[in-house]
Amino acid sequence: MTSFHISKLVIIGVGLIGGSFALALRQAGLVKHIVGIGRSPQNMQHALDRGIIDEQTSDFSAALADADFVLLAVPVKQTGRVMQQMKPCLEGHTIISDVGSTKQNVVQAARENLGEHIERFIPAHPVAGTEFNGAQAAFPELFQSKPVILTPLPENDQQAVDAVTAFWQGCGARVSSMQPEQHDQLLAAISHLPHMLAFSLMQHIHTLSQTLGEENPLALLRFAGTSLNDMTRITASSPEMWRDICLENRAALLTQIEAYQQELSALRQMLVNHDGESLQKLFSAARATRQAWTALRDKS
Amino acid sequence: MTSFHISKLVIIGVGLIGGSFALALRQAGLVKHIVGIGRSPQNMQHALDRGIIDEQTSDFSAALADADFVLLAVPVKQTGRVMQQMKPCLEGHTIISDVGSTKQNVVQAARENLGEHIERFIPAHPVAGTEFNGAQAAFPELFQSKPVILTPLPENDQQAVDAVTAFWQGCGARVSSMQPEQHDQLLAAISHLPHMLAFSLMQHIHTLSQTLGEENPLALLRFAGTSLNDMTRITASSPEMWRDICLENRAALLTQIEAYQQELSALRQMLVNHDGESLQKLFSAARATRQAWTALRDKS
Repeated sequence: MTSFHISKLVIIGVGLIGGSFALALRQAGLVKHIVGIGRSPQNMQHALDRGIIDEQTSDFSAALADADFVLLAVPVKQTGRVMQQMKPCLEGHTIISDVGSTKQNVVQAARENLGEHIERFIPAHPVAGTEFNGAQAAFPELFQSKPVILTPLPENDQQAVDAVTAFWQGCGARVSSMQPEQHDQLLAAISHLPHMLAFSLMQHIHTLSQTLGEENPLALLRFAGTSLNDMTRITASSPEMWRDICLENRAALLTQIEAYQQELSALRQMLVNHDGESLQKLFSAARATRQAWTALRDKS
Repeated sequence: MTSFHISKLVIIGVGLIGGSFALALRQAGLVKHIVGIGRSPQNMQHALDRGIIDEQTSDFSAALADADFVLLAVPVKQTGRVMQQMKPCLEGHTIISDVGSTKQNVVQAARENLGEHIERFIPAHPVAGTEFNGAQAAFPELFQSKPVILTPLPENDQQAVDAVTAFWQGCGARVSSMQPEQHDQLLAAISHLPHMLAFSLMQHIHTLSQTLGEENPLALLRFAGTSLNDMTRITASSPEMWRDICLENRAALLTQIEAYQQELSALRQMLVNHDGESLQKLFSAARATRQAWTALRDKS
Protein backbone atom coordinates (compact mmCIF):
# COMPACT_ATOMS: atom_id res chain seq x y z
CA MET A 1 0.00 0.00 0.00
CA THR A 2 1.50 3.34 -1.06
CA SER A 3 -0.07 6.72 -0.32
CA PHE A 4 -3.34 5.14 0.81
CA HIS A 5 -3.97 2.87 -2.11
CA ILE A 6 -5.17 -0.67 -1.22
CA SER A 7 -3.74 -3.61 -3.11
CA LYS A 8 -5.85 -6.18 -1.27
CA LEU A 9 -9.04 -5.29 0.60
CA VAL A 10 -10.94 -7.84 2.68
CA ILE A 11 -14.59 -7.15 3.48
CA ILE A 12 -16.09 -9.33 6.20
CA GLY A 13 -19.87 -9.01 5.78
CA VAL A 14 -20.70 -7.82 2.26
CA GLY A 15 -24.03 -6.14 3.00
CA LEU A 16 -25.31 -2.63 2.39
CA ILE A 17 -22.43 -0.96 4.24
CA GLY A 18 -19.57 -3.31 3.38
CA GLY A 19 -20.70 -3.57 -0.25
CA SER A 20 -21.12 0.18 -0.67
CA PHE A 21 -17.65 0.78 0.82
CA ALA A 22 -16.19 -1.61 -1.78
CA LEU A 23 -18.08 0.07 -4.64
CA ALA A 24 -17.13 3.57 -3.48
CA LEU A 25 -13.42 2.72 -3.16
CA ARG A 26 -13.46 1.08 -6.58
CA GLN A 27 -15.12 4.11 -8.11
CA ALA A 28 -12.46 6.32 -6.48
CA GLY A 29 -9.71 4.09 -7.94
CA LEU A 30 -8.34 3.42 -4.45
CA VAL A 31 -8.40 -0.40 -4.49
CA LYS A 32 -7.03 -3.17 -6.71
CA HIS A 33 -8.40 -6.49 -5.44
CA ILE A 34 -11.36 -7.16 -3.13
CA VAL A 35 -12.00 -10.39 -1.22
CA GLY A 36 -15.37 -10.96 0.45
CA ILE A 37 -16.14 -13.18 3.44
CA GLY A 38 -19.78 -13.83 4.30
CA ARG A 39 -22.20 -16.43 5.57
CA SER A 40 -24.95 -16.34 2.96
CA PRO A 41 -23.88 -18.02 -0.32
CA GLN A 42 -26.71 -16.27 -2.13
CA ASN A 43 -25.59 -12.85 -0.93
CA MET A 44 -21.96 -13.57 -1.82
CA GLN A 45 -23.05 -14.58 -5.32
CA HIS A 46 -24.91 -11.25 -5.68
CA ALA A 47 -21.73 -9.48 -4.54
CA LEU A 48 -19.69 -11.32 -7.18
CA ASP A 49 -22.31 -10.79 -9.89
CA ARG A 50 -22.46 -7.06 -9.20
CA GLY A 51 -18.66 -6.75 -9.24
CA ILE A 52 -18.58 -5.62 -5.62
CA ILE A 53 -15.94 -8.26 -4.80
CA ASP A 54 -13.43 -10.07 -7.01
CA GLU A 55 -13.47 -13.34 -5.07
CA GLN A 56 -15.23 -14.85 -2.11
CA THR A 57 -13.97 -17.28 0.47
CA SER A 58 -14.72 -18.61 3.93
CA ASP A 59 -11.01 -19.23 4.58
CA PHE A 60 -9.76 -16.45 6.87
CA SER A 61 -6.16 -17.51 6.47
CA ALA A 62 -6.19 -17.26 2.65
CA ALA A 63 -8.22 -14.07 2.72
CA LEU A 64 -6.04 -12.22 5.23
CA ALA A 65 -2.69 -13.21 3.68
CA ASP A 66 -1.09 -10.02 2.30
CA ALA A 67 -4.21 -7.99 3.08
CA ASP A 68 -3.62 -4.25 3.38
CA PHE A 69 -6.99 -3.44 4.85
CA VAL A 70 -9.79 -5.42 6.51
CA LEU A 71 -13.26 -3.96 6.96
CA LEU A 72 -15.42 -5.64 9.58
CA ALA A 73 -19.00 -5.02 8.50
CA VAL A 74 -20.90 -7.60 10.57
CA PRO A 75 -23.60 -6.99 13.21
CA VAL A 76 -21.95 -5.49 16.32
CA LYS A 77 -22.68 -8.46 18.53
CA GLN A 78 -20.65 -10.75 16.22
CA THR A 79 -17.58 -8.50 16.44
CA GLY A 80 -15.73 -10.38 19.19
CA ARG A 81 -16.25 -13.79 17.61
CA VAL A 82 -15.05 -12.64 14.17
CA MET A 83 -11.99 -10.97 15.71
CA GLN A 84 -11.10 -14.27 17.36
CA GLN A 85 -11.22 -15.96 13.96
CA MET A 86 -9.16 -13.20 12.36
CA LYS A 87 -6.39 -12.91 14.94
CA PRO A 88 -4.17 -15.93 14.10
CA CYS A 89 -4.28 -14.98 10.40
CA LEU A 90 -3.52 -11.25 10.71
CA GLU A 91 -0.24 -9.90 9.35
CA GLY A 92 1.78 -7.19 11.03
CA HIS A 93 1.00 -4.43 8.54
CA THR A 94 -2.74 -5.02 8.01
CA ILE A 95 -5.02 -2.15 8.96
CA ILE A 96 -8.42 -3.09 10.39
CA SER A 97 -11.56 -1.04 10.82
CA ASP A 98 -15.26 -1.65 11.50
CA VAL A 99 -18.62 0.01 10.86
CA GLY A 100 -20.45 -0.70 14.16
CA SER A 101 -23.10 1.77 15.28
CA THR A 102 -21.87 1.53 18.90
CA LYS A 103 -18.23 1.90 19.81
CA GLN A 104 -17.46 1.21 23.48
CA ASN A 105 -18.47 -2.45 23.12
CA VAL A 106 -16.51 -2.80 19.85
CA VAL A 107 -13.43 -1.29 21.52
CA GLN A 108 -13.80 -3.74 24.40
CA ALA A 109 -14.11 -6.67 21.99
CA ALA A 110 -10.98 -5.47 20.14
CA ARG A 111 -8.96 -5.15 23.35
CA GLU A 112 -10.02 -8.67 24.38
CA ASN A 113 -9.43 -10.35 21.02
CA LEU A 114 -6.91 -8.55 18.81
CA GLY A 115 -3.78 -8.59 20.99
CA GLU A 116 -1.02 -6.35 19.58
CA HIS A 117 -3.02 -5.88 16.36
CA ILE A 118 -5.07 -3.28 18.24
CA GLU A 119 -2.35 -0.83 17.12
CA ARG A 120 -3.86 -0.96 13.63
CA PHE A 121 -7.55 -1.38 14.57
CA ILE A 122 -9.27 1.98 14.04
CA PRO A 123 -12.92 1.88 15.19
CA ALA A 124 -15.28 3.74 12.84
CA HIS A 125 -18.98 4.37 12.35
CA PRO A 126 -20.34 5.56 9.00
CA VAL A 127 -23.61 7.32 9.91
CA ALA A 128 -25.43 6.30 6.74
CA GLY A 129 -27.90 3.68 5.66
CA THR A 130 -31.18 2.94 3.95
CA GLU A 131 -34.08 0.70 4.92
CA PHE A 132 -32.67 -2.05 2.61
CA ASN A 133 -30.12 -4.78 3.36
CA GLY A 134 -27.63 -6.99 1.58
CA ALA A 135 -25.18 -6.73 -1.30
CA GLN A 136 -28.02 -6.03 -3.70
CA ALA A 137 -28.81 -2.80 -1.84
CA ALA A 138 -25.20 -1.53 -1.99
CA PHE A 139 -24.38 1.55 -4.07
CA PRO A 140 -21.21 3.65 -4.29
CA GLU A 141 -22.80 7.01 -3.33
CA LEU A 142 -24.14 5.80 0.04
CA PHE A 143 -21.50 7.73 2.02
CA GLN A 144 -21.45 10.90 -0.09
CA SER A 145 -21.43 13.91 2.31
CA LYS A 146 -22.40 11.59 5.19
CA PRO A 147 -20.60 11.67 8.54
CA VAL A 148 -18.11 8.96 9.43
CA ILE A 149 -17.02 9.07 13.06
CA LEU A 150 -13.67 7.55 13.99
CA THR A 151 -12.95 6.76 17.63
CA PRO A 152 -9.14 6.30 17.55
CA LEU A 153 -7.56 4.56 20.55
CA PRO A 154 -4.47 5.54 22.57
CA GLU A 155 -2.92 2.30 21.27
CA ASN A 156 -3.43 3.30 17.60
CA ASP A 157 -0.69 3.88 15.08
CA GLN A 158 -1.17 7.35 13.59
CA GLN A 159 -0.45 6.20 10.03
CA ALA A 160 -3.27 3.66 10.31
CA VAL A 161 -5.64 6.41 11.51
CA ASP A 162 -4.60 8.58 8.57
CA ALA A 163 -5.16 5.71 6.13
CA VAL A 164 -8.67 4.94 7.40
CA THR A 165 -9.48 8.67 7.27
CA ALA A 166 -8.24 8.81 3.66
CA PHE A 167 -10.29 5.78 2.58
CA TRP A 168 -13.52 7.17 4.00
CA GLN A 169 -12.79 10.56 2.48
CA GLY A 170 -12.24 8.72 -0.78
CA CYS A 171 -15.83 7.42 -0.40
CA GLY A 172 -17.05 11.03 -0.19
CA ALA A 173 -17.67 10.98 3.57
CA ARG A 174 -17.08 13.78 6.10
CA VAL A 175 -14.71 12.21 8.64
CA SER A 176 -14.42 13.35 12.25
CA SER A 177 -13.05 11.87 15.46
CA MET A 178 -14.22 11.61 19.03
CA GLN A 179 -13.91 9.39 22.10
CA PRO A 180 -15.87 6.08 22.03
CA GLU A 181 -17.89 7.23 25.08
CA GLN A 182 -18.74 10.53 23.39
CA HIS A 183 -19.76 8.68 20.22
CA ASP A 184 -22.13 6.37 22.07
CA GLN A 185 -23.78 9.27 23.94
CA LEU A 186 -24.09 11.27 20.71
CA LEU A 187 -25.70 8.39 18.80
CA ALA A 188 -27.96 7.61 21.75
CA ALA A 189 -29.11 11.25 21.66
CA ILE A 190 -29.53 11.85 17.93
CA SER A 191 -30.72 8.42 16.81
CA HIS A 192 -31.50 5.88 19.52
CA LEU A 193 -33.50 8.22 21.78
CA PRO A 194 -35.70 9.53 18.91
CA HIS A 195 -36.55 5.92 18.05
CA MET A 196 -37.50 5.17 21.66
CA LEU A 197 -39.74 8.28 21.74
CA ALA A 198 -41.47 7.17 18.55
CA PHE A 199 -42.00 3.60 19.80
CA SER A 200 -43.38 4.92 23.10
CA LEU A 201 -45.69 7.31 21.27
CA MET A 202 -47.18 4.51 19.21
CA GLN A 203 -47.57 2.44 22.37
CA HIS A 204 -49.29 5.41 24.02
CA ILE A 205 -51.82 5.66 21.18
CA HIS A 206 -52.40 1.94 21.56
CA THR A 207 -53.04 2.17 25.30
CA LEU A 208 -55.22 5.26 24.88
CA SER A 209 -57.42 3.61 22.29
CA GLN A 210 -58.02 0.73 24.70
CA THR A 211 -58.82 3.19 27.50
CA LEU A 212 -61.42 4.75 25.19
CA GLY A 213 -62.93 1.31 24.52
CA GLU A 214 -61.48 0.99 21.00
CA GLU A 215 -59.72 -2.31 20.44
CA ASN A 216 -58.14 -1.00 17.26
CA PRO A 217 -55.84 2.06 17.45
CA LEU A 218 -56.78 2.91 13.86
CA ALA A 219 -60.03 4.29 15.31
CA LEU A 220 -57.87 7.14 16.70
CA LEU A 221 -55.18 7.20 14.03
CA ARG A 222 -57.66 7.98 11.28
CA PHE A 223 -57.98 11.46 12.85
CA ALA A 224 -54.24 12.02 12.92
CA GLY A 225 -52.45 14.41 10.62
CA THR A 226 -48.87 15.00 9.56
CA SER A 227 -47.45 15.60 13.04
CA LEU A 228 -48.16 12.10 14.35
CA ASN A 229 -47.23 10.66 10.98
CA ASP A 230 -43.79 12.29 11.07
CA MET A 231 -43.30 11.37 14.71
CA THR A 232 -43.99 7.66 14.18
CA ARG A 233 -42.49 7.03 10.73
CA ILE A 234 -39.41 5.34 12.22
CA THR A 235 -41.49 2.80 14.17
CA ALA A 236 -41.56 0.80 10.90
CA SER A 237 -37.88 -0.09 11.54
CA SER A 238 -36.75 -3.64 12.34
CA PRO A 239 -37.74 -4.64 15.93
CA GLU A 240 -34.83 -7.11 16.14
CA MET A 241 -32.29 -4.51 15.07
CA TRP A 242 -33.59 -2.00 17.59
CA ARG A 243 -33.64 -4.57 20.38
CA ASP A 244 -29.95 -5.21 19.64
CA ILE A 245 -29.05 -1.51 19.47
CA CYS A 246 -30.83 -0.94 22.79
CA LEU A 247 -28.89 -3.69 24.50
CA GLU A 248 -25.59 -2.75 22.83
CA ASN A 249 -25.82 0.93 23.77
CA ARG A 250 -27.86 0.40 26.91
CA ALA A 251 -25.96 2.60 29.36
CA ALA A 252 -25.75 5.63 27.06
CA LEU A 253 -29.37 5.25 25.99
CA LEU A 254 -30.51 5.11 29.62
CA THR A 255 -28.59 8.32 30.31
CA GLN A 256 -30.24 10.01 27.33
CA ILE A 257 -33.75 8.79 28.20
CA GLU A 258 -33.37 10.03 31.76
CA ALA A 259 -32.12 13.44 30.62
CA TYR A 260 -35.01 13.64 28.13
CA GLN A 261 -37.49 12.75 30.87
CA GLN A 262 -36.25 15.78 32.80
CA GLU A 263 -36.85 18.06 29.81
CA LEU A 264 -40.36 16.69 29.32
CA SER A 265 -41.08 17.07 33.05
CA ALA A 266 -39.89 20.68 32.89
CA LEU A 267 -42.30 21.38 30.02
CA ARG A 268 -45.07 19.62 31.93
CA GLN A 269 -44.37 21.84 34.96
CA MET A 270 -44.74 24.95 32.78
CA LEU A 271 -48.21 23.69 31.85
CA VAL A 272 -49.04 22.94 35.50
CA ASN A 273 -48.01 26.54 36.32
CA HIS A 274 -50.01 28.07 33.40
CA ASP A 275 -46.63 29.53 32.43
CA GLY A 276 -47.29 30.62 28.84
CA GLU A 277 -44.20 32.80 28.77
CA SER A 278 -41.78 29.94 29.50
CA LEU A 279 -43.59 27.67 27.04
CA GLN A 280 -43.32 30.23 24.27
CA LYS A 281 -39.63 30.77 25.07
CA LEU A 282 -39.00 27.01 24.87
CA PHE A 283 -40.90 26.67 21.59
CA SER A 284 -39.08 29.68 20.11
CA ALA A 285 -35.66 28.27 21.01
CA ALA A 286 -36.58 24.92 19.43
CA ARG A 287 -37.77 26.66 16.28
CA ALA A 288 -34.61 28.76 16.05
CA THR A 289 -32.43 25.63 16.34
CA ARG A 290 -34.54 23.81 13.77
CA GLN A 291 -34.28 26.73 11.35
CA ALA A 292 -30.51 26.98 11.81
CA TRP A 293 -30.19 23.26 11.17
CA THR A 294 -32.31 23.46 8.01
CA ALA A 295 -30.23 26.40 6.80
CA LEU A 296 -27.02 24.45 7.44
CA ARG A 297 -28.26 21.55 5.31
CA ASP A 298 -29.51 23.79 2.54
CA LYS A 299 -25.98 25.21 2.30
CA SER A 300 -24.20 21.86 2.13
CA MET B 1 -82.41 27.76 3.42
CA THR B 2 -83.90 24.68 1.82
CA SER B 3 -82.29 21.23 1.87
CA PHE B 4 -79.02 22.55 3.18
CA HIS B 5 -78.41 25.34 0.71
CA ILE B 6 -77.14 28.61 2.19
CA SER B 7 -78.57 31.88 0.87
CA LYS B 8 -76.41 34.03 3.11
CA LEU B 9 -73.21 32.81 4.73
CA VAL B 10 -71.24 34.95 7.18
CA ILE B 11 -67.59 34.10 7.78
CA ILE B 12 -66.02 35.75 10.81
CA GLY B 13 -62.26 35.51 10.27
CA VAL B 14 -61.49 34.95 6.59
CA GLY B 15 -58.15 33.15 6.95
CA LEU B 16 -56.92 29.80 5.69
CA ILE B 17 -59.78 27.85 7.26
CA GLY B 18 -62.65 30.32 6.90
CA GLY B 19 -61.58 31.22 3.37
CA SER B 20 -61.20 27.60 2.27
CA PHE B 21 -64.64 26.77 3.68
CA ALA B 22 -66.12 29.59 1.59
CA LEU B 23 -64.31 28.45 -1.56
CA ALA B 24 -65.28 24.80 -1.05
CA LEU B 25 -68.97 25.61 -0.49
CA ARG B 26 -68.98 27.84 -3.55
CA GLN B 27 -67.37 25.12 -5.65
CA ALA B 28 -70.01 22.66 -4.39
CA GLY B 29 -72.76 25.11 -5.36
CA LEU B 30 -74.06 25.18 -1.78
CA VAL B 31 -73.97 28.94 -1.14
CA LYS B 32 -75.35 32.07 -2.80
CA HIS B 33 -73.94 35.09 -0.98
CA ILE B 34 -70.93 35.32 1.36
CA VAL B 35 -70.21 38.15 3.79
CA GLY B 36 -66.83 38.41 5.48
CA ILE B 37 -65.97 40.05 8.79
CA GLY B 38 -62.32 40.53 9.70
CA ARG B 39 -59.86 42.85 11.37
CA SER B 40 -57.15 43.20 8.73
CA PRO B 41 -58.28 45.47 5.83
CA GLN B 42 -55.49 44.04 3.67
CA ASN B 43 -56.60 40.45 4.27
CA MET B 44 -60.24 41.35 3.60
CA GLN B 45 -59.20 42.97 0.32
CA HIS B 46 -57.40 39.76 -0.67
CA ALA B 47 -60.56 37.81 0.19
CA LEU B 48 -62.64 40.11 -2.04
CA ASP B 49 -60.07 40.06 -4.85
CA ARG B 50 -59.93 36.26 -4.83
CA GLY B 51 -63.73 35.97 -4.88
CA ILE B 52 -63.77 34.21 -1.51
CA ILE B 53 -66.36 36.68 -0.18
CA ASP B 54 -68.89 38.89 -1.97
CA GLU B 55 -68.79 41.74 0.54
CA GLN B 56 -66.96 42.68 3.68
CA THR B 57 -68.15 44.63 6.68
CA SER B 58 -67.33 45.30 10.32
CA ASP B 59 -71.01 45.82 11.11
CA PHE B 60 -72.24 42.67 12.88
CA SER B 61 -75.85 43.84 12.75
CA ALA B 62 -75.86 44.26 8.95
CA ALA B 63 -73.87 41.08 8.42
CA LEU B 64 -76.03 38.83 10.59
CA ALA B 65 -79.40 40.12 9.29
CA ASP B 66 -81.06 37.25 7.40
CA ALA B 67 -77.94 35.06 7.75
CA ASP B 68 -78.57 31.33 7.39
CA PHE B 69 -75.20 30.26 8.60
CA VAL B 70 -72.35 31.89 10.54
CA LEU B 71 -68.90 30.33 10.65
CA LEU B 72 -66.69 31.53 13.49
CA ALA B 73 -63.13 31.08 12.25
CA VAL B 74 -61.19 33.23 14.71
CA PRO B 75 -58.44 32.15 17.16
CA VAL B 76 -60.05 30.13 19.96
CA LYS B 77 -59.27 32.65 22.67
CA GLN B 78 -61.30 35.33 20.86
CA THR B 79 -64.39 33.10 20.71
CA GLY B 80 -66.15 34.45 23.80
CA ARG B 81 -65.63 38.09 22.85
CA VAL B 82 -66.90 37.58 19.29
CA MET B 83 -69.94 35.66 20.55
CA GLN B 84 -70.77 38.63 22.78
CA GLN B 85 -70.69 40.92 19.75
CA MET B 86 -72.80 38.49 17.71
CA LYS B 87 -75.50 37.75 20.24
CA PRO B 88 -77.69 40.88 20.01
CA CYS B 89 -77.68 40.63 16.20
CA LEU B 90 -78.47 36.90 15.83
CA GLU B 91 -81.78 35.85 14.31
CA GLY B 92 -83.82 32.88 15.55
CA HIS B 93 -83.10 30.62 12.57
CA THR B 94 -79.38 31.26 12.10
CA ILE B 95 -77.13 28.23 12.45
CA ILE B 96 -73.68 28.89 13.97
CA SER B 97 -70.54 26.78 13.95
CA ASP B 98 -66.85 27.25 14.65
CA VAL B 99 -63.51 25.71 13.67
CA GLY B 100 -61.63 25.82 17.00
CA SER B 101 -58.98 23.16 17.63
CA THR B 102 -60.14 22.76 21.24
CA LYS B 103 -63.77 22.25 22.13
CA GLN B 104 -64.47 22.26 25.88
CA ASN B 105 -63.44 25.91 26.17
CA VAL B 106 -65.44 26.85 23.07
CA VAL B 107 -68.50 25.09 24.49
CA GLN B 108 -68.07 26.97 27.75
CA ALA B 109 -67.76 30.28 25.90
CA ALA B 110 -70.92 29.46 23.92
CA ARG B 111 -72.89 28.59 27.06
CA GLU B 112 -71.79 31.84 28.69
CA ASN B 113 -72.40 34.11 25.72
CA LEU B 114 -74.98 32.76 23.26
CA GLY B 115 -78.07 32.41 25.47
CA GLU B 116 -80.88 30.50 23.76
CA HIS B 117 -78.96 30.60 20.45
CA ILE B 118 -76.90 27.68 21.79
CA GLU B 119 -79.64 25.50 20.29
CA ARG B 120 -78.20 26.24 16.86
CA PHE B 121 -74.49 26.46 17.79
CA ILE B 122 -72.82 23.25 16.62
CA PRO B 123 -69.15 23.09 17.71
CA ALA B 124 -66.85 21.69 15.02
CA HIS B 125 -63.17 21.14 14.35
CA PRO B 126 -61.88 20.59 10.81
CA VAL B 127 -58.60 18.68 11.33
CA ALA B 128 -56.83 20.24 8.37
CA GLY B 129 -54.37 23.00 7.72
CA THR B 130 -51.13 24.03 6.12
CA GLU B 131 -48.19 26.02 7.41
CA PHE B 132 -49.58 29.15 5.67
CA ASN B 133 -52.09 31.72 6.94
CA GLY B 134 -54.59 34.24 5.64
CA ALA B 135 -57.09 34.50 2.80
CA GLN B 136 -54.29 34.22 0.26
CA ALA B 137 -53.51 30.71 1.49
CA ALA B 138 -57.13 29.49 1.20
CA PHE B 139 -58.02 26.84 -1.39
CA PRO B 140 -61.21 24.83 -1.94
CA GLU B 141 -59.63 21.35 -1.63
CA LEU B 142 -58.24 21.93 1.88
CA PHE B 143 -60.86 19.70 3.53
CA GLN B 144 -60.97 16.96 0.89
CA SER B 145 -60.96 13.57 2.71
CA LYS B 146 -59.92 15.33 5.93
CA PRO B 147 -61.67 14.63 9.26
CA VAL B 148 -64.13 17.17 10.66
CA ILE B 149 -65.15 16.41 14.24
CA LEU B 150 -68.47 17.75 15.50
CA THR B 151 -69.12 17.86 19.23
CA PRO B 152 -72.90 18.36 19.31
CA LEU B 153 -74.42 19.54 22.60
CA PRO B 154 -77.49 18.23 24.45
CA GLU B 155 -79.03 21.66 23.78
CA ASN B 156 -78.60 21.34 20.00
CA ASP B 157 -81.39 21.24 17.47
CA GLN B 158 -80.95 18.08 15.37
CA GLN B 159 -81.73 19.87 12.10
CA ALA B 160 -78.89 22.30 12.78
CA VAL B 161 -76.52 19.36 13.40
CA ASP B 162 -77.64 17.78 10.14
CA ALA B 163 -77.10 21.03 8.26
CA VAL B 164 -73.55 21.54 9.59
CA THR B 165 -72.79 17.89 8.76
CA ALA B 166 -74.07 18.40 5.21
CA PHE B 167 -72.03 21.58 4.66
CA TRP B 168 -68.77 19.94 5.74
CA GLN B 169 -69.56 16.86 3.65
CA GLY B 170 -70.15 19.28 0.78
CA CYS B 171 -66.55 20.47 1.32
CA GLY B 172 -65.37 16.87 0.86
CA ALA B 173 -64.69 16.23 4.55
CA ARG B 174 -65.26 13.02 6.54
CA VAL B 175 -67.57 14.12 9.37
CA SER B 176 -67.81 12.34 12.73
CA SER B 177 -69.10 13.23 16.18
CA MET B 178 -67.87 12.84 19.72
CA GLN B 179 -68.10 14.46 23.15
CA PRO B 180 -66.12 17.72 23.63
CA GLU B 181 -64.04 16.05 26.38
CA GLN B 182 -63.25 13.11 24.12
CA HIS B 183 -62.30 15.48 21.30
CA ASP B 184 -59.87 17.40 23.49
CA GLN B 185 -58.20 14.23 24.76
CA LEU B 186 -57.98 12.85 21.23
CA LEU B 187 -56.40 16.02 19.84
CA ALA B 188 -54.08 16.24 22.83
CA ALA B 189 -52.94 12.68 22.06
CA ILE B 190 -52.61 12.77 18.28
CA SER B 191 -51.44 16.34 17.76
CA HIS B 192 -50.59 18.36 20.88
CA LEU B 193 -48.55 15.65 22.64
CA PRO B 194 -46.41 14.87 19.54
CA HIS B 195 -45.58 18.57 19.30
CA MET B 196 -44.55 18.66 22.98
CA LEU B 197 -42.31 15.61 22.46
CA ALA B 198 -40.65 17.28 19.48
CA PHE B 199 -40.09 20.56 21.33
CA SER B 200 -38.64 18.66 24.32
CA LEU B 201 -36.38 16.65 22.04
CA MET B 202 -34.93 19.78 20.49
CA GLN B 203 -34.46 21.25 23.97
CA HIS B 204 -32.72 18.03 25.02
CA ILE B 205 -30.25 18.31 22.11
CA HIS B 206 -29.65 21.91 23.15
CA THR B 207 -28.95 21.00 26.78
CA LEU B 208 -26.76 18.04 25.75
CA SER B 209 -24.61 20.15 23.46
CA GLN B 210 -23.97 22.55 26.33
CA THR B 211 -23.11 19.62 28.62
CA LEU B 212 -20.57 18.52 26.00
CA GLY B 213 -19.06 22.02 25.94
CA GLU B 214 -20.60 22.97 22.58
CA GLU B 215 -22.37 26.31 22.68
CA ASN B 216 -24.03 25.59 19.33
CA PRO B 217 -26.32 22.53 19.02
CA LEU B 218 -25.44 22.37 15.32
CA ALA B 219 -22.16 20.75 16.41
CA LEU B 220 -24.30 17.70 17.30
CA LEU B 221 -27.04 18.11 14.73
CA ARG B 222 -24.61 17.84 11.81
CA PHE B 223 -24.26 14.15 12.73
CA ALA B 224 -28.02 13.56 12.78
CA GLY B 225 -29.86 11.62 10.11
CA THR B 226 -33.45 11.25 9.05
CA SER B 227 -34.81 10.01 12.39
CA LEU B 228 -34.06 13.21 14.31
CA ASN B 229 -35.05 15.23 11.27
CA ASP B 230 -38.51 13.62 11.13
CA MET B 231 -38.92 13.87 14.89
CA THR B 232 -38.24 17.62 15.04
CA ARG B 233 -39.80 18.84 11.80
CA ILE B 234 -42.85 20.24 13.63
CA THR B 235 -40.72 22.37 15.95
CA ALA B 236 -40.71 24.92 13.11
CA SER B 237 -44.36 25.69 13.98
CA SER B 238 -45.47 29.03 15.44
CA PRO B 239 -44.41 29.34 19.12
CA GLU B 240 -47.28 31.74 19.85
CA MET B 241 -49.87 29.38 18.38
CA TRP B 242 -48.52 26.45 20.38
CA ARG B 243 -48.39 28.48 23.59
CA ASP B 244 -52.10 29.25 23.05
CA ILE B 245 -53.01 25.63 22.23
CA CYS B 246 -51.16 24.46 25.37
CA LEU B 247 -53.05 26.85 27.58
CA GLU B 248 -56.40 26.23 25.83
CA ASN B 249 -56.15 22.44 26.08
CA ARG B 250 -54.05 22.41 29.23
CA ALA B 251 -55.91 19.78 31.28
CA ALA B 252 -56.19 17.22 28.48
CA LEU B 253 -52.58 17.79 27.41
CA LEU B 254 -51.36 17.26 30.98
CA THR B 255 -53.29 13.98 31.11
CA GLN B 256 -51.69 12.86 27.83
CA ILE B 257 -48.16 13.92 28.83
CA GLU B 258 -48.47 12.03 32.12
CA ALA B 259 -49.75 8.89 30.40
CA TYR B 260 -46.92 9.15 27.86
CA GLN B 261 -44.36 9.54 30.65
CA GLN B 262 -45.58 6.21 32.03
CA GLU B 263 -45.05 4.50 28.65
CA LEU B 264 -41.55 5.94 28.35
CA SER B 265 -40.74 4.89 31.92
CA ALA B 266 -41.94 1.37 31.14
CA LEU B 267 -39.61 1.22 28.14
CA ARG B 268 -36.79 2.60 30.27
CA GLN B 269 -37.43 -0.12 32.85
CA MET B 270 -37.10 -2.80 30.14
CA LEU B 271 -33.65 -1.38 29.38
CA VAL B 272 -32.75 -1.30 33.08
CA ASN B 273 -33.75 -4.99 33.25
CA HIS B 274 -31.81 -5.94 30.07
CA ASP B 275 -35.22 -7.21 28.90
CA GLY B 276 -34.66 -7.64 25.18
CA GLU B 277 -37.75 -9.76 24.76
CA SER B 278 -40.14 -7.08 26.06
CA LEU B 279 -38.37 -4.41 24.02
CA GLN B 280 -38.72 -6.43 20.84
CA LYS B 281 -42.39 -7.09 21.61
CA LEU B 282 -43.01 -3.38 22.12
CA PHE B 283 -41.19 -2.46 18.90
CA SER B 284 -43.05 -5.15 16.94
CA ALA B 285 -46.45 -3.93 18.17
CA ALA B 286 -45.55 -0.35 17.20
CA ARG B 287 -44.45 -1.46 13.76
CA ALA B 288 -47.62 -3.50 13.22
CA THR B 289 -49.77 -0.49 14.12
CA ARG B 290 -47.72 1.76 11.89
CA GLN B 291 -48.04 -0.65 8.96
CA ALA B 292 -51.80 -0.99 9.47
CA TRP B 293 -52.13 2.80 9.51
CA THR B 294 -50.07 3.17 6.34
CA ALA B 295 -52.20 0.50 4.62
CA LEU B 296 -55.38 2.31 5.69
CA ARG B 297 -54.16 5.55 4.11
CA ASP B 298 -52.95 3.86 0.96
CA LYS B 299 -56.48 2.50 0.52
CA SER B 300 -58.25 5.85 0.99
